[in-house]
Amino acid sequence: MNAAAQSREPLRWTIQTQLPVAYEIVETPGLLDPANPELLRLPEGGSSTQVRLVVLDHSIDELYGERIRTYFDANSVPVSYLCMPGDEESKSIGHVLDVVTKLNEVGTNRLSSPPIVIGGGVLADVVGLAASLYRRGIPYIRVPTTLLGQVDVSVAAKTGINFGGYRNRLGSYSPPPRTLIDREFLATVPHRQIRNGMGEILKMALIKDLRLFELLEEHGADLVEARFQDTGGALLPSGIADEVIGRAIAGMAEELQPNLWEKDLQRSVDYGHSFSPLVEMRALPELLHGEAVAMECVFSAVLAAQRGLITGADLERISAATVRLGLRPSHPLFCDVDLLSEALADTVRHRDGRQNLPILTRIGAVCFLNDLSVAEIASAAGYMGRLLDPAPRPATPAVIG
Amino acid sequence: MNAAAQSREPLRWTIQTQLPVAYEIVETPGLLDPANPELLRLPEGGSSTQVRLVVLDHSIDELYGERIRTYFDANSVPVSYLCMPGDEESKSIGHVLDVVTKLNEVGTNRLSSPPIVIGGGVLADVVGLAASLYRRGIPYIRVPTTLLGQVDVSVAAKTGINFGGYRNRLGSYSPPPRTLIDREFLATVPHRQIRNGMGEILKMALIKDLRLFELLEEHGADLVEARFQDTGGALLPSGIADEVIGRAIAGMAEELQPNLWEKDLQRSVDYGHSFSPLVEMRALPELLHGEAVAMECVFSAVLAAQRGLITGADLERISAATVRLGLRPSHPLFCDVDLLSEALADTVRHRDGRQNLPILTRIGAVCFLNDLSVAEIASAAGYMGRLLDPAPRPATPAVIG
Repeated sequence: MNAAAQSREPLRWTIQTQLPVAYEIVETPGLLDPANPELLRLPEGGSSTQVRLVVLDHSIDELYGERIRTYFDANSVPVSYLCMPGDEESKSIGHVLDVVTKLNEVGTNRLSSPPIVIGGGVLADVVGLAASLYRRGIPYIRVPTTLLGQVDVSVAAKTGINFGGYRNRLGSYSPPPRTLIDREFLATVPHRQIRNGMGEILKMALIKDLRLFELLEEHGADLVEARFQDTGGALLPSGIADEVIGRAIAGMAEELQPNLWEKDLQRSVDYGHSFSPLVEMRALPELLHGEAVAMECVFSAVLAAQRGLITGADLERISAATVRLGLRPSHPLFCDVDLLSEALADTVRHRDGRQNLPILTRIGAVCFLNDLSVAEIASAAGYMGRLLDPAPRPATPAVIG
Repeated sequence: MNAAAQSREPLRWTIQTQLPVAYEIVETPGLLDPANPELLRLPEGGSSTQVRLVVLDHSIDELYGERIRTYFDANSVPVSYLCMPGDEESKSIGHVLDVVTKLNEVGTNRLSSPPIVIGGGVLADVVGLAASLYRRGIPYIRVPTTLLGQVDVSVAAKTGINFGGYRNRLGSYSPPPRTLIDREFLATVPHRQIRNGMGEILKMALIKDLRLFELLEEHGADLVEARFQDTGGALLPSGIADEVIGRAIAGMAEELQPNLWEKDLQRSVDYGHSFSPLVEMRALPELLHGEAVAMECVFSAVLAAQRGLITGADLERISAATVRLGLRPSHPLFCDVDLLSEALADTVRHRDGRQNLPILTRIGAVCFLNDLSVAEIASAAGYMGRLLDPAPRPATPAVIG
């Protein structure tokens, strides 16, 4: 009997199914106008009179807390509020568990009383992860209030926290069924935070949208200055802010939809995200995410120019556009070959053993490298060193190969 | 311009896609025989020479540690081991983070070096959650070594940890691509742990498989005694252990496949899982999961008998079968009306405002109740009180309603 059991073929059961996922991003002016129903609309339709958890970051509470409370009061929705810090160092498991504890207190239902998060990208990541874990996943409503949140986080399905010195080491793919965008929030965002979001818009322009890049070259500085608010034509032609945000969101949506769970590890949206995660973590709290991404946009353009994939003129154009947006093109950590090599090694683990490094072939298009050498990194790091002092523009890097 | 912006219709972007999911459960005798390739087979095919993280619970390390190390050594696979406790109280975020830290140390790749967890259901839940969060999800290989793990956890897509006094309050749906079952592990499992697994098999039998229930009535006690090992016909007819495990797994697979993410909150596999989660948590560490589930199997049968949905004879048959399996049919906490009401209230939140209480219509079939009253709970709790002392069999409960 034993022998028979051991010689028989393994028994197998297979489970095969698929999870349909749909979510929407709605740009709705006047979101906090009590007459605007978007904030209360439930994913499945209808609305709820059950108590809702609303999570705000401290700056939103300070600037919009009264209007937010008025909105829910006017709509007779009982709300329990939780205020949290929104800086990158707060993307921690501790804050995720704070949200979970609050969900327990509020007695949140599995489906029909989704928590609402109003704040920057960090808060969206933290609350998103808490919601994705709570009862193995409840829906939530996301209201990004920063430019980075509105053009980048808004479209993504990702949540995440930092752990063990690595950025987004823990997280999930769990898009909120509804993300609501109101450009008006940007009016109170510090200019530095607007530039931070510009880093991701620059990335999107470089990988796939020459028109968007040209808009940034022409109007980027004014968009930052005006914080994407309509100026009645004084500073910006009407429609430019809408077009820039719209192109960034649409580009992101187009890239993510066919590869939402990153089964394909060759992702052009990883442009600017191969070396910068470790740089950003090591520089904390000095660099914002989009600032580090913008630096890598330049660094990768240097790599491309060294290979002759783009011209020296293109590299200078990219570097100049970055500076015009008020973003620093370089940083001492982008000159540190050891750190850059370590960053790439972790990225290779993340891409399952391959570099899959998105690299420009022109402004608006990428290919992928899998043979980047330490010598190329060192050479590009040297170029980045010369960009640290922006006064004398460095010579175009020699094509090495 | 502002007026125009505020009066325009919201802009919308929609993302629609689906995630294909497939995973297999393989029952393979001689799993730790170095010649058996199943443990090293990668989900995508082929095998890997990269260092693997192998997580063991303490008892598995003690009993099988040498054979496990021999297996990997013989196959020239470098392994980093992590040993952890496997009791319900260890289903904590702290242990999840221990696994994550170890994954960081090992430098686990995103896809091609999946960690392997060999142990009971708790360990599978903890490592499964760590893997599902690590880099937003990496594959893992699950080797359940307890009966509960082999017939219940093995098929499920769920991971989870306890938090804030609630069972599985945090978790995910992230099935490992491969679950490997070797009945031989059960030979060293304490009898109490075998009975624990019998609690879930009893549940499966009650909701959909009269034949399985009859097998439990006839051979359950002997299966426990023999720990599901082949006895050459001495204690058990040959094939009975395989049939019982096979029917339990197949039944579970059939129920889960069409509703893997629990979009439908009417789930017959929730039988035995509406009141027991809070009972189990409050009784910690006294009750094992399957023990609490078995008690609720009886409790729910009492509720069914009170409504006249099943006969008194069926109730007695269920209670007698439970006792024959060596499982206690009742517990003081199942006589505590306040606690049972609190448990149901949280279950109602979990089922989004409805009771959706699976209840027997006969042995092998369920319907769902949404109007269970406190009076019915109180009456059933009274009956459970009389079951605490199993000596004098209580009279069949009167049909109330």
